[in-house]
Amino acid sequence: QAADSVSSEPAPTPKWYQTVSIRGYVQARYNRLLETNPDLTCEQCDRSWGRNGGFSLRRIRIIFFGQLHERVYFYLQPDFASTLSGSSSLNATLLRDAYFDVGLDKASQFRVRLGQSKIPFGFENMQSSQNRLALDRSDGINSSFSNERDLGAFLYWAPTAVRQRFSRLVKDGLKGSGDYGVVGIGAFNGQTANRPELNNQRHVVARVTYPLEIGGQLIEPALQAYSGEYVVNRDQLSSGVKHRPDLRYPDQRMAATFVLYPQPFGFQAEYNVGRGPEFNPRTDSIETQRLHGGYLLLNYRLQHKGQQFYPFLRAQYYDGGKKHERDARSYQVREAELGVEWQPFPSFELVTMYTLSNRRFEDFQKPDNRQRGGLLRLQAQLNF
Amino acid sequence: QAADSVSSEPAPTPKWYQTVSIRGYVQARYNRLLETNPDLTCEQCDRSWGRNGGFSLRRIRIIFFGQLHERVYFYLQPDFASTLSGSSSLNATLLRDAYFDVGLDKASQFRVRLGQSKIPFGFENMQSSQNRLALDRSDGINSSFSNERDLGAFLYWAPTAVRQRFSRLVKDGLKGSGDYGVVGIGAFNGQTANRPELNNQRHVVARVTYPLEIGGQLIEPALQAYSGEYVVNRDQLSSGVKHRPDLRYPDQRMAATFVLYPQPFGFQAEYNVGRGPEFNPRTDSIETQRLHGGYLLLNYRLQHKGQQFYPFLRAQYYDGGKKHERDARSYQVREAELGVEWQPFPSFELVTMYTLSNRRFEDFQKPDNRQRGGLLRLQAQLNF
Amino acid sequence: QAADSVSSEPAPTPKWYQTVSIRGYVQARYNRLLETNPDLTCEQCDRSWGRNGGFSLRRIRIIFFGQLHERVYFYLQPDFASTLSGSSSLNATLLRDAYFDVGLDKASQFRVRLGQSKIPFGFENMQSSQNRLALDRSDGINSSFSNERDLGAFLYWAPTAVRQRFSRLVKDGLKGSGDYGVVGIGAFNGQTANRPELNNQRHVVARVTYPLEIGGQLIEPALQAYSGEYVVNRDQLSSGVKHRPDLRYPDQRMAATFVLYPQPFGFQAEYNVGRGPEFNPRTDSIETQRLHGGYLLLNYRLQHKGQQFYPFLRAQYYDGGKKHERDARSYQVREAELGVEWQPFPSFELVTMYTLSNRRFEDFQKPDNRQRGGLLRLQAQLNF
Repeated sequence: QAADSVSSEPAPTPKWYQTVSIRGYVQARYNRLLETNPDLTCEQCDRSWGRNGGFSLRRIRIIFFGQLHERVYFYLQPDFASTLSGSSSLNATLLRDAYFDVGLDKASQFRVRLGQSKIPFGFENMQSSQNRLALDRSDGINSSFSNERDLGAFLYWAPTAVRQRFSRLVKDGLKGSGDYGVVGIGAFNGQTANRPELNNQRHVVARVTYPLEIGGQLIEPALQAYSGEYVVNRDQLSSGVKHRPDLRYPDQRMAATFVLYPQPFGFQAEYNVGRGPEFNPRTDSIETQRLHGGYLLLNYRLQHKGQQFYPFLRAQYYDGGKKHERDARSYQVREAELGVEWQPFPSFELVTMYTLSNRRFEDFQKPDNRQRGGLLRLQAQLNF
Repeated sequence: QAADSVSSEPAPTPKWYQTVSIRGYVQARYNRLLETNPDLTCEQCDRSWGRNGGFSLRRIRIIFFGQLHERVYFYLQPDFASTLSGSSSLNATLLRDAYFDVGLDKASQFRVRLGQSKIPFGFENMQSSQNRLALDRSDGINSSFSNERDLGAFLYWAPTAVRQRFSRLVKDGLKGSGDYGVVGIGAFNGQTANRPELNNQRHVVARVTYPLEIGGQLIEPALQAYSGEYVVNRDQLSSGVKHRPDLRYPDQRMAATFVLYPQPFGFQAEYNVGRGPEFNPRTDSIETQRLHGGYLLLNYRLQHKGQQFYPFLRAQYYDGGKKHERDARSYQVREAELGVEWQPFPSFELVTMYTLSNRRFEDFQKPDNRQRGGLLRLQAQLNF
Repeated sequence: QAADSVSSEPAPTPKWYQTVSIRGYVQARYNRLLETNPDLTCEQCDRSWGRNGGFSLRRIRIIFFGQLHERVYFYLQPDFASTLSGSSSLNATLLRDAYFDVGLDKASQFRVRLGQSKIPFGFENMQSSQNRLALDRSDGINSSFSNERDLGAFLYWAPTAVRQRFSRLVKDGLKGSGDYGVVGIGAFNGQTANRPELNNQRHVVARVTYPLEIGGQLIEPALQAYSGEYVVNRDQLSSGVKHRPDLRYPDQRMAATFVLYPQPFGFQAEYNVGRGPEFNPRTDSIETQRLHGGYLLLNYRLQHKGQQFYPFLRAQYYDGGKKHERDARSYQVREAELGVEWQPFPSFELVTMYTLSNRRFEDFQKPDNRQRGGLLRLQAQLNF
């Protein structure tokens, strides 16, 4: 009876701080040591590479998130280290994620995700920069979507056991991608994050992945593809560049991924092929061209007295355009990076990385621009 | 004695999370289904209506608030789905509210509100978009103040019992406006939220409202009026449009409101008349013109197994200018909307709404522009 | 044995709200009472001074901070009352602080600070605006760094006892500067907060300070200096102004500080000399010129029934340029201010201040501009 009377009392309403959580991270960088060529830069990677670069904050993220109901999860992530189009002020605020998941079943094995979120294309795109070893994503995979995100609606499916595995791959320091389902499909605007939609068609994407345990090791192969029509924005155009009258170009890619999680040796490889807008310096025009590229990553996980060390080596190649840059800038990239991430405490990480790079990046204003060189890059990261 | 010694100990300092709270909401939308006319748009309502609209986030709000002292309350609300003047980046951050209330008595029956907050003009303007049924506010009432807010100082008075009733009208799902006093008066810059003041005069506003219980039903009639001088900003002007040399125009309105809260049938009506700047396509000039308009809303509240359903019908009319738009754009709006809000859980809402609209909206660049059509609009809302 | 088994259990992981805290403040102002000259303005102080000024929010700060580990502390402070270059929208969001301290020893007597933070130059610059008595910083000291901050790396040293004293000087209402070490040195970009670096050299800074207890009174003398090369940004230039071809100018200052904390009488004086870019109206050109200036502050602390009163008098002088303003605008400032800060409760403060000012501020567009006048300034501040 006493038990009955206790159980019949309503559960106390949870406090706001029990359902909403806040976490985040900050990346401070310096890229100018041992630099051999100040004209070697990479706009999408890090604007503080090269001439006149200095101390910089690459990312300042504060994340508000929570499981509000067994079927409702949300995730809001502004970035406080952004710049806005039309402004030269650094460290302005721009949205990264703002999405909510609505479970179609009680365990949310099927989930609909609405809002701005990462497009499920490429393991490296979905892996958080908080967890990635190399300071920047590879040009080949990341050229698909500037800032990795767009506005749209997505459907994800994964069995509960796999969802838990996705979660552990991040929590246990194995540098996982987070949970974008075993199967994911979606429709989205297609102009990349925080840019206005410019046509009446949506992009579509599909992805299949599966994290497998084999002999104590964890591997994750994946396949993914997207298709749509990208409209080059007039504010991306150099005066004088030729282009299709309606500025519309096909934008299609497919990619294969293989990941061996570092226990202690890790290996990661991704490659994508497709087509999209690309500046052609011979014709001074933006044309639909083929693109292809990817990367190989070797890493190792060393734990010593509560400290973590992750030495890594990454080699990447890309030949294609970057649709979101000036005149759909043309790229050919060969790059090798050797570095180590050191976590003396969970709240602090230091990455030291040597980059050897050979980059051709050409637009109407710089139609003949190949830069080679090396540089040492430093990043201190705070996790809270 | 033991009791004495206990009571003489100082109360422990409350933790920050016990005095400061965080909540918010997110609205994701899609407006392109069953669309009959892509030229039918509404700039103040939702920029993702019509041609080239896609998935959009209409509002991303994180609210920091708290009662810091019996006489001090604060409320900070940035919006993370805004655009800034001079920038095409979507989902930048712009302030909605930043105000604090200082009670002149211990119960704060008299309160001074300082900072940026909503102008007490129009029930629909003060009701949060988190609670409103129709996806956008009516043109007639909302054309008074873009984003409903301005910088100023306000004095609100309400008896404690009425303050509690205002609070319950929101908490109990009756779609109340929040507590802007039984009597409210204020002075404010008059150029609307986040826009620089352009003259040396302040606008003034006054409002009287009273929520009454009659036979188990709750009604709330209100009267309100404001007066000031609006200065059309040069960055609003089309090149070639004629206007007063000093760009100063009278800006005056009065409005009547009647609300019957939905228990279960609800009814809401507002109408305002006034004068202000308005583009005249016959003379290519911005002139002081009369304006009038309002809306009727019928709604119903249905509760079923912990779920909430609010079917609604709204009809609106407006004839006048929008002072904050290009050339003080001229409008004539006839619109009917039929929809339903469904809350399967408190943290998630889905609104489906069919809009039938006939809109004339004309400025110097589009001096002959009447658009008619229908469209189905969808909104998913997250509450946290 | 029971005790052993208890102590061998792992400590529960702290909740997020136990390691991350949120606090902040808001300043609402009105500057137009008893104004004798609407052309008397001060861009760096407060843009709502003078003609067409109205109600304004000078600062809206939300601070996320915490001690994450005995050696790791972080502090993130966006401001929600900023404007961005290229945009006229008020109340946009721009970063103030984003730094983390990494202790080199367990007590963090030696700390490395990385990210964007205040440059240790000038007591008034380092003292938070939340604590300062006068509404704005003095032109002489504050012209060193717009918004007081920059991106860089700093090393601070202070003994633990002094670190605790720095902390108490703020907490006990003595209007301290916070803990920037007894000795601080650093390297930073040198273009001031949120502006892109424009050269390949860093600025350097050094400071020594010491808070001493003498006969029940606390004093703090300090010396500080910085050196670097400032590059005038092209978007600061009036069309037609003459300047060095490479826009590079030396930027060097040294300053002396003396503070007597108010127990109950307080006294504060700072003076700096140096050289930097300054517009010369006789030659229409930006030239390297000498600069000097500082202030004297007398204050008093009165506590009455839990309320705090701080009457104060400040006199300031400055003759030099402001490198971050249009054409490195030339200034000569003589100003006296008499005011009182009243804190009826810890969460609310009201400052009333009368300013008598004589300001010459000249650039290429206004080469002959001396303004004299008086005005009453009001500020209500919320602390949370």
